[in-house]
Amino acid sequence: MNTFGDKWSFTSFGESHGAAIGGVLDGVPAGLHIDLDIIRHELSLRAGRANNLCKTGELPVNPRPLPISEATLNGVSPRAKNEPDEVEWLSGVINEELPNVQINEQMVNEQMVNLVTLGTPIAFLIRNKDARPEDYEWLKNTYRVGHADKVYELKYGIRDWRGGGRASARETASRVVAGCIAKQELARKGVSIQARLIQVGAETDPAKFNELIASYRREGDSIGGIVECRITGLPVGTGEPIFDKLQAHLAFAVMSINACKGFEYGTGFEGVTQPGSAINHISGGIAGGISDGSEIIFRCVFKPTPTTKKALDELNEKMRKCENEKIVNRPIVNRSDACVAVRAVPVVEAMTALSLVQFL
Amino acid sequence: MNTFGDKWSFTSFGESHGAAIGGVLDGVPAGLHIDLDIIRHELSLRAGRANNLCKTGELPVNPRPLPISEATLNGVSPRAKNEPDEVEWLSGVINEELPNVQINEQMVNEQMVNLVTLGTPIAFLIRNKDARPEDYEWLKNTYRVGHADKVYELKYGIRDWRGGGRASARETASRVVAGCIAKQELARKGVSIQARLIQVGAETDPAKFNELIASYRREGDSIGGIVECRITGLPVGTGEPIFDKLQAHLAFAVMSINACKGFEYGTGFEGVTQPGSAINHISGGIAGGISDGSEIIFRCVFKPTPTTKKALDELNEKMRKCENEKIVNRPIVNRSDACVAVRAVPVVEAMTALSLVQFL
Amino acid sequence: MNTFGDKWSFTSFGESHGAAIGGVLDGVPAGLHIDLDIIRHELSLRAGRANNLCKTGELPVNPRPLPISEATLNGVSPRAKNEPDEVEWLSGVINEELPNVQINEQMVNEQMVNLVTLGTPIAFLIRNKDARPEDYEWLKNTYRVGHADKVYELKYGIRDWRGGGRASARETASRVVAGCIAKQELARKGVSIQARLIQVGAETDPAKFNELIASYRREGDSIGGIVECRITGLPVGTGEPIFDKLQAHLAFAVMSINACKGFEYGTGFEGVTQPGSAINHISGGIAGGISDGSEIIFRCVFKPTPTTKKALDELNEKMRKCENEKIVNRPIVNRSDACVAVRAVPVVEAMTALSLVQFL
Amino acid sequence: MNTFGDKWSFTSFGESHGAAIGGVLDGVPAGLHIDLDIIRHELSLRAGRANNLCKTGELPVNPRPLPISEATLNGVSPRAKNEPDEVEWLSGVINEELPNVQINEQMVNEQMVNLVTLGTPIAFLIRNKDARPEDYEWLKNTYRVGHADKVYELKYGIRDWRGGGRASARETASRVVAGCIAKQELARKGVSIQARLIQVGAETDPAKFNELIASYRREGDSIGGIVECRITGLPVGTGEPIFDKLQAHLAFAVMSINACKGFEYGTGFEGVTQPGSAINHISGGIAGGISDGSEIIFRCVFKPTPTTKKALDELNEKMRKCENEKIVNRPIVNRSDACVAVRAVPVVEAMTALSLVQFL
Repeated sequence: MNTFGDKWSFTSFGESHGAAIGGVLDGVPAGLHIDLDIIRHELSLRAGRANNLCKTGELPVNPRPLPISEATLNGVSPRAKNEPDEVEWLSGVINEELPNVQINEQMVNEQMVNLVTLGTPIAFLIRNKDARPEDYEWLKNTYRVGHADKVYELKYGIRDWRGGGRASARETASRVVAGCIAKQELARKGVSIQARLIQVGAETDPAKFNELIASYRREGDSIGGIVECRITGLPVGTGEPIFDKLQAHLAFAVMSINACKGFEYGTGFEGVTQPGSAINHISGGIAGGISDGSEIIFRCVFKPTPTTKKALDELNEKMRKCENEKIVNRPIVNRSDACVAVRAVPVVEAMTALSLVQFL
Repeated sequence: MNTFGDKWSFTSFGESHGAAIGGVLDGVPAGLHIDLDIIRHELSLRAGRANNLCKTGELPVNPRPLPISEATLNGVSPRAKNEPDEVEWLSGVINEELPNVQINEQMVNEQMVNLVTLGTPIAFLIRNKDARPEDYEWLKNTYRVGHADKVYELKYGIRDWRGGGRASARETASRVVAGCIAKQELARKGVSIQARLIQVGAETDPAKFNELIASYRREGDSIGGIVECRITGLPVGTGEPIFDKLQAHLAFAVMSINACKGFEYGTGFEGVTQPGSAINHISGGIAGGISDGSEIIFRCVFKPTPTTKKALDELNEKMRKCENEKIVNRPIVNRSDACVAVRAVPVVEAMTALSLVQFL
Repeated sequence: MNTFGDKWSFTSFGESHGAAIGGVLDGVPAGLHIDLDIIRHELSLRAGRANNLCKTGELPVNPRPLPISEATLNGVSPRAKNEPDEVEWLSGVINEELPNVQINEQMVNEQMVNLVTLGTPIAFLIRNKDARPEDYEWLKNTYRVGHADKVYELKYGIRDWRGGGRASARETASRVVAGCIAKQELARKGVSIQARLIQVGAETDPAKFNELIASYRREGDSIGGIVECRITGLPVGTGEPIFDKLQAHLAFAVMSINACKGFEYGTGFEGVTQPGSAINHISGGIAGGISDGSEIIFRCVFKPTPTTKKALDELNEKMRKCENEKIVNRPIVNRSDACVAVRAVPVVEAMTALSLVQFL
Repeated sequence: MNTFGDKWSFTSFGESHGAAIGGVLDGVPAGLHIDLDIIRHELSLRAGRANNLCKTGELPVNPRPLPISEATLNGVSPRAKNEPDEVEWLSGVINEELPNVQINEQMVNEQMVNLVTLGTPIAFLIRNKDARPEDYEWLKNTYRVGHADKVYELKYGIRDWRGGGRASARETASRVVAGCIAKQELARKGVSIQARLIQVGAETDPAKFNELIASYRREGDSIGGIVECRITGLPVGTGEPIFDKLQAHLAFAVMSINACKGFEYGTGFEGVTQPGSAINHISGGIAGGISDGSEIIFRCVFKPTPTTKKALDELNEKMRKCENEKIVNRPIVNRSDACVAVRAVPVVEAMTALSLVQFL
C-alpha cells in the first residue's frame, strides 16, 4: 500500500504534520556512492526554494537550469520554503572515512561525508520542523473542495486532519530522496532521465511561465501544467510483453503523483487524427511493451492546485454562514502553490527512476 | 511477468500460433455463477465477429448495442473472424446439474451448463484452430515496422515468429474471459463498467465511424481511436492514497493493452488550459487516489494498426529488392484490422474489471 | 494462493477428479532444453509406478535407484498406478525440429520431440483419465478423519468432494513437472538436488523399508517416514539475511507438501542436547540465512496416510449405524497408499528446486 | 528482502551498531490502540533484562511468568542489558489526548500517551545507544566461526563489521515491536499466542533451566533449546490449501529467526514411529493447510550461541599465532548469551503473530 516496486522496494511513511516523513529503500546493491548534493538539489527543486544550492559541474545526473525565478517563488507554498528538508540517514549506508561516527548535518554541510551503500535497507527520515498542526485545526470539522479529506475519513474512519496527513504533497519529498538514489544507479549504467515543464495553461513558451503563474497567484487562482520526460540510454529489452509493459509501469509510477490527471507517450492523444501510414514509424522508444533503444518520451498533465485563495475565501464565507462565528476570526492560512506542475518536475523524475530501476 | 493482480490473480499464457492460449484466474470466491453467454458475447466483440450472439435481456452486465456493422467487419482481421474462440474449462468450476460429467461445447450450446466456481484456480484454454504458422514463415527472417518482432529477438535470443507469438492481439482473448468473470462479480456488487468508442481519427460522431474506418481500409491504411470508459457503483474508499492510487492502477491496466498510447481521467490533458477556479469541482470520481462515490470516467487512445496493406506492400517491395525472388511469389496475407480501437472496447472493460476487482 | 515463487512463478490448477490438473510456469528463460524423459521418470516415481522408464545414463540430474519394488507397489494407490500422467504442452515451448506441428504423445514416445523454451509462460496439463468421481459419491455427505474435507467446506461453503478436489495428492504431479524444469536449469548451473527416504517408522535400514511398508499395508494400517535432501553446488551467497533466509524458504517449500509435519537442517532437533563447543562448526550449508558453499542437508517428516483400510472400515461401520442402509452396499474403495513418504521423495526434490530457482 | 508479509507488510531496517534499528509496519487498520506497556515488556524479555516491568493484569495478551531469573541474566549479553530499547514513533499513530504534541519517552513513562493507529504506515526506530563499533574493530579483518561474517562479505563485497551489522540478533527487537502490534490486533479478534521454553539441552524441567544455562556459561560454553508455541482462538479456515498452507507460513516465519534449526507441528518428527491408526486423529490444529479450530501447537529448536568464551579464546589464540601481537593486547569482549533460546521466546511469538495477521 505504501510500497513501490519489488526489486528496489521503496516504502514511504510519515504524515505531513507528524514527527517526520521518510522511507526505506530496500534492494539497493552494496557499494553505490550516494551524492548528497544531488539529493539536496532535487529536494530544493521540489520545495520550490531558491536555486543557490545548484553548483554546476557537481551534478552529473541532472545539470538543468532551474525553471523557477524569485517571481515564481512567490507562487510557492510557505511550508515548502520553510522546511529545511534535512535528510537523516538511519541505516544502509556507511560513511567511508569515519565509519564509527554518526553522520550529522554539519558533517554533510562541510562535505566530510562520503556515503556508500551496504546492500542493506536504506532508511532515512526528514523531520517536520515547520509542522503547524494548529494551522489546520479548522480542518478537523470540515472538508476542502478538491482535496481527499472526505474520502479519507470515509475510508479509514479516523483522519489525520493535520495538513492532509499522508495525502499532503510533502510526502513526495521521500520519493525524491529515493528517486535520487535510483537515478544515480541508473546514471552509472548510462541511463539519463530529464523532465521539464513544457506547458502552463495554454502557454508553451517557457520564458513566459513565471509571469503566467504569478498572474494566477495574484488573482487567488491556480493553473495546470504539462511535464515532459525524456529517457535515454535505457538498454534494449527493458519491459515485459504482456501486463508488465514498460509504458504501463511508467504510467503507474507517474499517475501515482498527486494532481496528475493523464499520461501519454509516443504519438499520444494527438496521434489519433493521423493515419497509420504517417505515424507507424514513431515508436516512442517502446515496441510491444519493451524498450527498443531509442529515446523514450512521455508527457503527463497536472491539474491546478485546489487550495486557492478563491476557494478558501468561499469556504470561509460558507463556514461563516453555516457554522459558527468563531471560525471567521481565525484566518485560514494558504500554504499551497499556484502551479503544482512546477514542483512536480523532480517528482516525475524520481518516480520514473524508481520505476526503471525495477527492471535493471 | 504474465500475471496481473495479487487478489484476483490472473496468469495468461499461450502463443498466437501455438497449441492454445488461455489463463488461470486465482482468488475467485466459491459460489459465483459464470454466465457463459456474456463471455461468448464479449469474445465475439473482441474478435469483431457478427453480433447475432447478442440476446438483449440475457446480458445484465453489458447490454450495449454493438458498434460494428458488416461494413466494419470488412475491416476486421480474417484470423479473428475464423477463430471460434471456444473456451474449454479445465478447473475451478463445476457444472451444478451434472458435476460428474465433463463440460463440452455441445452442452454449452444447448445451455445444459450451469457453471459455478469452486474457490480454486479457474483454468481455461482456447485452442488455436485457425493457426497458420506457415503464413508467417516469411517473418522468420524479417522484422515488421511498428511491431515488436525485433525487440523480442533482442530480449529473448529466441523468438516465436508464428504470428507475433505472445505479442499478438490474440492474447487479449484470455483477458476478456478473465475480465468477464471479474465483471460478473463486480455486477453482483453493484459496480458497472461501460466502455465505448468515442472518437475515430478526428471524427466524434459514432454514426460515421464505420464509413471512416472502411475508407482507411480501402486505401490500405489504418487509423487510431479513443475509447471512453465509465465506472458506476464503485464503493467510496476504493484505492490507496500513496502509490496504489486507483487512477494509477487503472492506467497500469489499460496501458498494458497493445497499441494503447495514453490514459487520462477527470479533467485530463484538456484541463490544462482551465484555471483551478473553473475545474476544481471535477473529481473524475477519484480524490487523493481514492474513489469518492461519483462516476469515474477515463479515456484511452489507441494508435493505428501498423500491419497495413501499404506497410506490407513496402515490405514486399523491399524484400524483392534486397533479399531474393522467392519471397515475391508468396503474397503476404494481411490478417490485421484497420482500426484496433474498435476491438479494444471489450478489452478495456476486461482490464478495468480485473483492476477493480483487486480492491474489493 | 496457488502460486509459488515470484521469479520462476509457478501457478498450479486442477481438481483431482475434474477435467485436468496442470500448471503455468512463468519466468523460465528462453533457450532451455527440457528433457521429457526426466519428467516422465519423476512422474512415475511420484505415482509409485514400475521403474522401467528409468534409463540410466539419460538422467544426468537424478540417476538414483528407485526405492520401490513390486512389493512396495502393492502399497501404492491404484489411482496413481492407473493414471498415465501424459503431459500436454500448451505454450512456452517449441519443438525445435518441427515448430509448426503440434506435439502429441506419439511424437514424445518416438523421441521426435526436442522441446526448447521460448521465454514465455510454460503451460501444461495432465488429463484426469482415471477420474472416477462416482467412487467418491459417498463423500458428498461425510468427512474423512485426517482429511481436509471438513475445513474445506467450512472455508469455501462449497466443496469439490470428488476425491478431495485440490487437497488430493494428485496435485503434486504438477509440482513435479514444474520442479523438473527447475532442476534442469539448476543442473545447468551445477546445482544438484538429491532426496531419499532415510527412515520408515523406526527403521533406518533402506533394505528393510519395502517389507515394513508391506506389513502395515497388510494390517490395513499406514506408517510415516523421513526424507533427507542434499543440495550441492549452490553458489555461496544464496539467500537473504533477514526474513528471506534460505532455510526459511526451503522450510516453506517443503512444509507445503501434503502430510509433511516437520523440517530441520544442520544440527536440527537432535542438536539441542549438544553444547556449542561440540557443534558450532556444523553450518548445515547455511550461515546467517545465506549458503556458505558447503553441502546443504535437510530432513522432513511425513505422517502416515490417514485413509487406511482400518479407518475406512470404521467409517463404514459408523455410517451403517448412523445413516442409512444404502451406503453399506457400496464398498468404499481405498485408493491411497500405506506410506506416502515413498512417493514424497520426488515432490521434495521438486519443491526444493522451485524454491532454489527463485534465488538464481 | 527485508519485508515480511503482504497484508500487514513489515519492513525492517538498521545495523546493530549504526544509528538506529527500526521498521515500518504497513497495512494496520485505523483505530487500533497500541499498548506500550506490552511492547516494553516484550522488549525486555527479548533483551533478557529484569522482569520488573511486568505488571500482571495490564498484559491481557501475554500474562506469562518470565522464565528468567537474575541467575540467568548473568548468561545474557551485556549489550542487550544496556540498551534501553526506547521506541520512537515516527508516523502512523496519533496520541489521542494531545494530537499536536510530539510523543517523547517522558510522556510514555508517565503514561500520558494513548497511541491509536491512523491506518497509515507505522514507522518506528530504536536508537543504538550502547553501540560500540570500536569493540568490533578486530572483526574488520577476521571471520567468526558459526557467524555469517564470511558469507556476508562474499555476497555483498562490502560488510558492516560493526557487531554483525544486519545479522546481529539486535535486529529482532524491531520484529518484537511489530509483532506486539500484530498480537494486539489478534487478541482483539480472540486469537492468543503463547510461546515458552520447554527444553534446554536434554533438560525438560523448567525449574532446572536457569542452573543448567549458568553452568554452560561458567564453562565458557553454550547450549541449545526448544521453544513450543500454542495458538488458540484462530478462526477455522485460516490458511490456503496448496502452497500457502498455514504450517508452511508458520515454518517460514519461525525459521527466519537467527539460530533456529528446525520446525515441527502436530505429530512432528517423533510421530514417525507411530502407525496411522494410532495418530490419525492428531491434527495439530491444521488440516490440509487450513486451521480446523482446535489449538495449534508447534515447536522450534535453537542451536547454541556460536560466540562463546571458548570460541573467542581459540580465536584469540589463533590470531596471536597467525597475525600480529597488537591484537593480543586487546581483549575481545564477549557480548553474547549462553542460551539464545531463552530470548527467542518473544521473537517466536512476534513472528507467529506477524505470520497469522496476514491471513485475517
